[in-house]
Amino acid sequence: MIIIPGSSSQELAYRVANKLSVDMARVEFKRFPDNEIYVRVLNEINDDLAVIISTQRDQNNSIIESILLADAIRENVKEIYLVAPYLAYARQDKRFNPGEPISIKALAEIYSNIFDKVITINPHEEHIREFFKIPFVVGDAVPKLAEYVKDKLDNPIVLGPDQGALRFAKVAAEVLETEYDYLEKTRISPTEIKIAPKTLDVNGRDVLIVDDIISTGGTVATAAKMLKEQGAKDIIAACVHPVLIGDALNKLYYSGVKEVVGTNTFVSEVSKVDISDVIIDLLR
Amino acid sequence: MIIIPGSSSQELAYRVANKLSVDMARVEFKRFPDNEIYVRVLNEINDDLAVIISTQRDQNNSIIESILLADAIRENVKEIYLVAPYLAYARQDKRFNPGEPISIKALAEIYSNIFDKVITINPHEEHIREFFKIPFVVGDAVPKLAEYVKDKLDNPIVLGPDQGALRFAKVAAEVLETEYDYLEKTRISPTEIKIAPKTLDVNGRDVLIVDDIISTGGTVATAAKMLKEQGAKDIIAACVHPVLIGDALNKLYYSGVKEVVGTNTFVSEVSKVDISDVIIDLLR
Repeated sequence: MIIIPGSSSQELAYRVANKLSVDMARVEFKRFPDNEIYVRVLNEINDDLAVIISTQRDQNNSIIESILLADAIRENVKEIYLVAPYLAYARQDKRFNPGEPISIKALAEIYSNIFDKVITINPHEEHIREFFKIPFVVGDAVPKLAEYVKDKLDNPIVLGPDQGALRFAKVAAEVLETEYDYLEKTRISPTEIKIAPKTLDVNGRDVLIVDDIISTGGTVATAAKMLKEQGAKDIIAACVHPVLIGDALNKLYYSGVKEVVGTNTFVSEVSKVDISDVIIDLLR
Repeated sequence: MIIIPGSSSQELAYRVANKLSVDMARVEFKRFPDNEIYVRVLNEINDDLAVIISTQRDQNNSIIESILLADAIRENVKEIYLVAPYLAYARQDKRFNPGEPISIKALAEIYSNIFDKVITINPHEEHIREFFKIPFVVGDAVPKLAEYVKDKLDNPIVLGPDQGALRFAKVAAEVLETEYDYLEKTRISPTEIKIAPKTLDVNGRDVLIVDDIISTGGTVATAAKMLKEQGAKDIIAACVHPVLIGDALNKLYYSGVKEVVGTNTFVSEVSKVDISDVIIDLLR
C-alpha cells in the first residue's frame, strides 16, 4: 500500500502513512499560468494498492485533482482507493426540485469508473451509497469528538440540533456516559420560536451540541442563546465537518458557545480533532 | 434540439440557438454558501438532443458544471453533446515526465461516459481525438480571425510564431490571398537570439501573426519587436483562444503590436471575433 496525498491533505496523508507504516508518495502540486492543475508523482510506484487521500474542501479543484492523480498512477497499481474524508456534493443527494442534478450521483458514477473503493467520514446521508458501483465505506468521527470534549464538560446533556442529528448525539452520549436528546423548534407566536430539548432540562447543566456539519451556524447559534436562557452552563458545539461559512464561527461564539470543535476532515480554525485513526481503521 | 448554456457561455448559447432557430433552456446558476455549484434547468426538456455549450475558461468549475448539467437533463433527452469551444487541459496531451497524468485523456474518459459527442474549436493537438470513445468534432476559427483582420492590413505577410503554427498561417493566408511563413529563432550569440520569417522579408510590409493560443504572449511580443526592427509596418497578433495570462496583453501592445485579436472561445478584452457560426456549422 502507498498513500498518495491530495494537495489539501498532505499532513493527514503523512499521519495515515506513518501510523500504518506504509510508504507515502512524493507529489508535486502546481498550477499552470492559466490556472490548470499540474500534479506529478515524483517517486516510482510499485504497489498493489494506492490510496489517494483528498479532503474535498476546495470542492471542484479537489475533485479534478483526484482524477488527475489517479491517471498519473493508474498504470503502476492494481487498485486505487479514494479517501475523501469530506465528500463534496454529498448534500445534493436528491432532486429537491425538477431540473436539478443529483450532484453526488453524477460524481459517484465518475468515481466508480476511476477508483476501486471510496472511503469517507460521516457523509450527510448514507443512502448515497446506492449511487456507487464500487464499495463505499463510511467512518464515524463522532466518538473522537466526544473523547475530545470529555474532560471539558461536567456530566453534560448531549443534544442534536434537530431530530436527524439525534443519532450523533446518541453516539457521543455513549462515550460520555450521559443522556442525549434533540432540539425541537416550537413556534410560540408569528414572530417568535422556542428551541429546547424535546424531553430533557438543561437548567444548571453543561451541554454538548453535536452534528455532522456546521455550515452557516445559524441554528446552533440560536439554540445556544436559548439554552443559555434556559439555564445551561457551558455549551460546546462540536461537528465532524467544520464548514463554518463566512461569519459562522463568530456567530457561534457571540451566541454564548464556550468552544467550537471540529475535525480535520475540513481544515478550519477549529479542526482540533484528528481523524487519521478513523481512516486507518478502515484501511487496515 | 435544445441548447443548454454553461454559466460562462450564456451569450454564445443564445447566439447559437437563435441562429439555428432552436430552443434555448432557462438555466439557474448559483453557488451554495460553501461554494459548491448549483444548477437547475427551469424549463421542461422534451427533445431528442441537448447541446451543452460551455467554454471551459474557468477550467475545473466549468468541467464540474457540465457534468452536473448533463445529470440534470439526462433522463429527458436521448443524446447530449458537449460543445467546449475552449477545451480545458487539451495541452496536457502526453506524459511529458514520468508520474504525470495525461490530463485530457482522464477527462476524455469521463466525457465519453457522459456525453454522446464532444465539439471543440482548434484544440492544441488534434491527436487527443484518440482519447475519446465518442465522436470528437473539431471546428476551425482561423478563417473567422482572418476575415476580421482583412480590411485592417494592406497585403500582409501571415506568420506563425513557430513551425507548429504554420498550419494556422496557411489557413489565414488563403483567406487573405497572400503569402505565409513561420518565425524561426536563431541564436546569434550566447545572449542574443534573432527571430525572423524563415524565408520571407517583412521590410515595408504589414504582418499578421496567427496562432491557436496566446498564453503568456512572450514569444509573440519578442517577435513583434524584432519584426519592427526588420522594417515591418502594422502588426496584428491574432489567436483563436486569447488566454492572455497576467500582463500578456500589455506586453504585446508595449512591444509594438497594433492590435491583438481573439475569439469568444475564451472571454477576454480582445474577444472580438464571434465563433457561433463555426459551432452552428458543426451542429447542422
